[in-house]
Amino acid sequence: MRPSGRAPDEMRAITIETGYTKHAEGSCLISFGETRVLCTASVEDRIPPWLRGKGEGWVTGEYSMLPRATHTRGQREAAKGKQSGRTQEIQRLIGRSLRAVVDLKKLGEHQITLDCDVLQADGGTRTASISGAWVALRLAVDGLLKSGAITQDPITAKVAAISCGIYKGTPVLDLDYPEDSSADADANFVLIEGGKIAEAQATAEGAPYDEEGFLRLLRLAQIGCAQVFKAQGEATRK
Amino acid sequence: MRPSGRAPDEMRAITIETGYTKHAEGSCLISFGETRVLCTASVEDRIPPWLRGKGEGWVTGEYSMLPRATHTRGQREAAKGKQSGRTQEIQRLIGRSLRAVVDLKKLGEHQITLDCDVLQADGGTRTASISGAWVALRLAVDGLLKSGAITQDPITAKVAAISCGIYKGTPVLDLDYPEDSSADADANFVLIEGGKIAEAQATAEGAPYDEEGFLRLLRLAQIGCAQVFKAQGEATRK
Amino acid sequence: MRPSGRAPDEMRAITIETGYTKHAEGSCLISFGETRVLCTASVEDRIPPWLRGKGEGWVTGEYSMLPRATHTRGQREAAKGKQSGRTQEIQRLIGRSLRAVVDLKKLGEHQITLDCDVLQADGGTRTASISGAWVALRLAVDGLLKSGAITQDPITAKVAAISCGIYKGTPVLDLDYPEDSSADADANFVLIEGGKIAEAQATAEGAPYDEEGFLRLLRLAQIGCAQVFKAQGEATRK
Amino acid sequence: MRPSGRAPDEMRAITIETGYTKHAEGSCLISFGETRVLCTASVEDRIPPWLRGKGEGWVTGEYSMLPRATHTRGQREAAKGKQSGRTQEIQRLIGRSLRAVVDLKKLGEHQITLDCDVLQADGGTRTASISGAWVALRLAVDGLLKSGAITQDPITAKVAAISCGIYKGTPVLDLDYPEDSSADADANFVLIEGGKIAEAQATAEGAPYDEEGFLRLLRLAQIGCAQVFKAQGEATRK
Amino acid sequence: MRPSGRAPDEMRAITIETGYTKHAEGSCLISFGETRVLCTASVEDRIPPWLRGKGEGWVTGEYSMLPRATHTRGQREAAKGKQSGRTQEIQRLIGRSLRAVVDLKKLGEHQITLDCDVLQADGGTRTASISGAWVALRLAVDGLLKSGAITQDPITAKVAAISCGIYKGTPVLDLDYPEDSSADADANFVLIEGGKIAEAQATAEGAPYDEEGFLRLLRLAQIGCAQVFKAQGEATRK
Amino acid sequence: MRPSGRAPDEMRAITIETGYTKHAEGSCLISFGETRVLCTASVEDRIPPWLRGKGEGWVTGEYSMLPRATHTRGQREAAKGKQSGRTQEIQRLIGRSLRAVVDLKKLGEHQITLDCDVLQADGGTRTASISGAWVALRLAVDGLLKSGAITQDPITAKVAAISCGIYKGTPVLDLDYPEDSSADADANFVLIEGGKIAEAQATAEGAPYDEEGFLRLLRLAQIGCAQVFKAQGEATRK
Repeated sequence: MRPSGRAPDEMRAITIETGYTKHAEGSCLISFGETRVLCTASVEDRIPPWLRGKGEGWVTGEYSMLPRATHTRGQREAAKGKQSGRTQEIQRLIGRSLRAVVDLKKLGEHQITLDCDVLQADGGTRTASISGAWVALRLAVDGLLKSGAITQDPITAKVAAISCGIYKGTPVLDLDYPEDSSADADANFVLIEGGKIAEAQATAEGAPYDEEGFLRLLRLAQIGCAQVFKAQGEATRK
Repeated sequence: MRPSGRAPDEMRAITIETGYTKHAEGSCLISFGETRVLCTASVEDRIPPWLRGKGEGWVTGEYSMLPRATHTRGQREAAKGKQSGRTQEIQRLIGRSLRAVVDLKKLGEHQITLDCDVLQADGGTRTASISGAWVALRLAVDGLLKSGAITQDPITAKVAAISCGIYKGTPVLDLDYPEDSSADADANFVLIEGGKIAEAQATAEGAPYDEEGFLRLLRLAQIGCAQVFKAQGEATRK
Repeated sequence: MRPSGRAPDEMRAITIETGYTKHAEGSCLISFGETRVLCTASVEDRIPPWLRGKGEGWVTGEYSMLPRATHTRGQREAAKGKQSGRTQEIQRLIGRSLRAVVDLKKLGEHQITLDCDVLQADGGTRTASISGAWVALRLAVDGLLKSGAITQDPITAKVAAISCGIYKGTPVLDLDYPEDSSADADANFVLIEGGKIAEAQATAEGAPYDEEGFLRLLRLAQIGCAQVFKAQGEATRK
Repeated sequence: MRPSGRAPDEMRAITIETGYTKHAEGSCLISFGETRVLCTASVEDRIPPWLRGKGEGWVTGEYSMLPRATHTRGQREAAKGKQSGRTQEIQRLIGRSLRAVVDLKKLGEHQITLDCDVLQADGGTRTASISGAWVALRLAVDGLLKSGAITQDPITAKVAAISCGIYKGTPVLDLDYPEDSSADADANFVLIEGGKIAEAQATAEGAPYDEEGFLRLLRLAQIGCAQVFKAQGEATRK
Repeated sequence: MRPSGRAPDEMRAITIETGYTKHAEGSCLISFGETRVLCTASVEDRIPPWLRGKGEGWVTGEYSMLPRATHTRGQREAAKGKQSGRTQEIQRLIGRSLRAVVDLKKLGEHQITLDCDVLQADGGTRTASISGAWVALRLAVDGLLKSGAITQDPITAKVAAISCGIYKGTPVLDLDYPEDSSADADANFVLIEGGKIAEAQATAEGAPYDEEGFLRLLRLAQIGCAQVFKAQGEATRK
Repeated sequence: MRPSGRAPDEMRAITIETGYTKHAEGSCLISFGETRVLCTASVEDRIPPWLRGKGEGWVTGEYSMLPRATHTRGQREAAKGKQSGRTQEIQRLIGRSLRAVVDLKKLGEHQITLDCDVLQADGGTRTASISGAWVALRLAVDGLLKSGAITQDPITAKVAAISCGIYKGTPVLDLDYPEDSSADADANFVLIEGGKIAEAQATAEGAPYDEEGFLRLLRLAQIGCAQVFKAQGEATRK
């Protein structure tokens, strides 16, 4: 029995509010239940030094939690003077996941930074971030296409992410915080619409898992991402 | 003529949405026009070392802008590894302003941290932060009173802040970004309901001002803060 | 009754020893009573990146206290690895104040850095810094004019600063440390010779103040700055 | 055809030289082909603050590359003043992987830090680190058991790690640098002797992969880890 | 021929002005020619953690140059966020040199920090710092003895330092900046009154030196330190 | 009697294993008894900004201890976010010592970085580092000559370093850790083959020393370095 009363393969409600901020070239506020992340896509003409002169663009991600997004207040990383290992790990995952569906040559010499700022956390902040970042990216790229800055759509597919885990012996989909904090295994899947996998990470927290356990988590992720793809499509009409 | 078409003594619309996040003891999303700040109040039992054993509490403020709250994306201070002078200056102002209306003895050995995170910036972020922080503080203190953690209300009055400036020779109230970026003088006032001043800061940007100019700005601030006090009262029913 | 026995509108003795160090293009050791600040002006040909190609110069300020300038030894900011919010706030104020009296176009592509290092602190270190920085700036600019590096004087007026405060209910001029540490309100004024105001900052520490209180502090500041302007003139024969 | 001429399921030679340094409670120099990592286990009596009074121990990992472990010299992280996201991600993985086979209660109030310093890199440094760290840990724990500091063996199983990837369309085992830098997908598996999985991470670099691809990589990892378990056993005679 | 016209064994004028700042327990402004260093001794009751409970004290040194102590302005180490290797090397030397003449047991549980801040640099700042730090220390210890905080004098002797070097082939005493910047070898000696050596450091800059060269530098240092000991004695009447 | 049973003028065994790592242009693992340092020379085409356009090269050194090179584990400097004063002092010494035997003009516009990483420490790590760095440098320069990147040998001589000290009243050569930690005086000499001195540093730790003591330490250093020169020659066949 899940603390929320959900069935093992039941997602929380997903909502995506596009255009949440006025300055970003693309933005949305995405919610997976009570987890709420503000995702913005910022387009810049300068690209990282190692790409100069190649005619390619770049897509990168940044992630942060507001100090009181969580049950107890966390110290600001800006005040501590450095980003935690967890933050950096998530940032790298966001960038990698989005680049998996972008043809950097078609993007031309533009850099798009996807900022994912968690306003409220209740489990699954990194997967909501990736899922929302795609929406912000889609909107920003639509703008580039509309303005003629680029002529071919560099986005090759939708990408979405979801967490799964083994909670009290049962594989469950879309962990909320009470589940996440006591799961035996915790997995994050980044899937590409059409059935491919961009990233799979499954960690034993309490007890190691086996191949079958892994495959059951992957099945749940496929169920969950299908719903995210639908929500992304409705939000961007694509 | 102001870019927005407002009269010189006309504020932008103020909205305050309380309870914006579920974990904080008090929270609101405050808007002054298109400037939007998420303010949370976090209550902790530990107090700063220098206050230990005195039976007093502490109120402090923190401030940050999301990287894409502004026209062009700014680098995260956490990534740079330090907070800018501007950020620190504003944080100190928020803390000082709120402490001006709190009896720290009545607060008992609690620390309340007021986090002001700017989701969207269009001028006046520090004054919106102070005004919203009071609402978050009021809600958190109501909780402490209700739970019996403290027995006397430590808040002595409302405090609100507003920016004013001399724009193309005319003193105007509540500067938005286009005004702020080209004003001759830029002032921030922190006023206490009942007519007192907690803080006044007036800086000549383009041309120095004189005593009369200063007094006209103060008059505008009194007009503006009256409206903020009203909105704070409605939001907290106090 | 002030701890020092001074009348409410009585300044401490001001002394300005010019040419205190041999390497700087302009320098002085300024004392307001026992507060002693070494101010140097360094002229460099490189200007900040955002000014390049505009034919303009820049004036900026830096501030530091020696570790034992105060009653108890403070840790070096260089050892801590960062400058405090207070230091950064004062640095920004010094730069802004001096730029208020400099025509940056006439300065040409030169950057002048005003370093204010407090050798001994007894209240009013930031105002002594600004007042002494003007002298160092004046001397450095005289050198530029004499050498023909610039042909028009970019300094438009004298600028001076003084602190005032409400001490035991009475507005007083030029607070020393015992007054500063227990004042109800604490103000710093940066005035331009001729009657204009470059910056006014008045903070309630113990009890909020009102408009009349503010104006009485401003009157005191005008009395005090008149004396600083005189001392600046004598030191630089201008 | 692999650059090294190896068969797809062929590991590089594994060598483990135990007792490589004299001060550490356990140590080895592990080589996977030309990748060489010095792993040391340091036992300390102090444990992290959050564990105090629980009668449990802790196992953590640290990782670094010598500046010239790689083709071109990298700047020292100590000189840069911070550890990269990659370093922190690997450190977290090492700690998590080893804790998966340690009963922290049986370890008692001891902290064991596993330092993995890469002397020479040729692909697979993180997996060699985990595999070697287990040997260092085993030796250190043997010492604790022998000295009577603990009475029950807290290590529940062997843990080993190996990288696999899809190189030019073919799943291959134990990637070396030339393969790693151009693989379509790159996976790291941390397996526990007996068939369980502690961690699986599979990232699409060039092209996304599918479920079958993932399973083929897992099969290769099982083949590879069997050989690592054997080498670990020979090195520690367990 | 030395640029200053001095004889090879001729020191620059030494002046020591004691009591230069009012807050420090001991202080002096020491000048070796145009090199001017403010040295303060701060006494604190807390000692470093590793000495707690041993009934001993500690003496440590810190060193900094004001940004415009030199020909061209240097960036503040506090702004850079770290102290240079040179600064740290000098700090360590100052502490070590002074501890060579202090009986830490007789000092009791007090820590004395010797801050050496260079107001103007013209070569030999580290040796002036050590020589001046002894004076500040002597004055601070006199205060401890007078107040009864300690009963036995912990200072066992005078310590002084001087630089020497091989300039255009000739060993010379007390290098000024023009000599220092083009010397073939550069040495710093820390001598104890009575003939012993606390520290000798001789570095070949342009051309290596030999044993005889070293001994000639040592002879010069003995001549120079004799004069410093005399000046220290006159300044402290010891 | 020395703890190791060695005669006062007896070195520990020196071994030098060249080509220890495959990526560096020159490398060796040098051992002075149980002190083991991995030295690599990395050649790069870019030179420091201040040398650009002069047609000269640069040689610099870096130094680090692995966290468990010592008896008790030390925190990583990368984790602390800064290098200690000791590390920086040693790095500066390594660079200076090697530059003493390199004609930077003949090196052309190449920078050679000598990384000295201590795998195991038992006293004398800085002197082993310098001695091993020469071997790595020699090998890297041989490669430059062989490839034709430079045409004249920029290395003018061998350089070696050794520690000496006064242990229980007796001058001894090549201190190991037990001697180093309780010596009365501790000296490091950097000598150039042929009899010249590049650097001499002698520090009184417990009791000050005199001129004769210094000379006896220098004699021991000459004996020791002769053996290092021989080992360097055998390792590089020069």
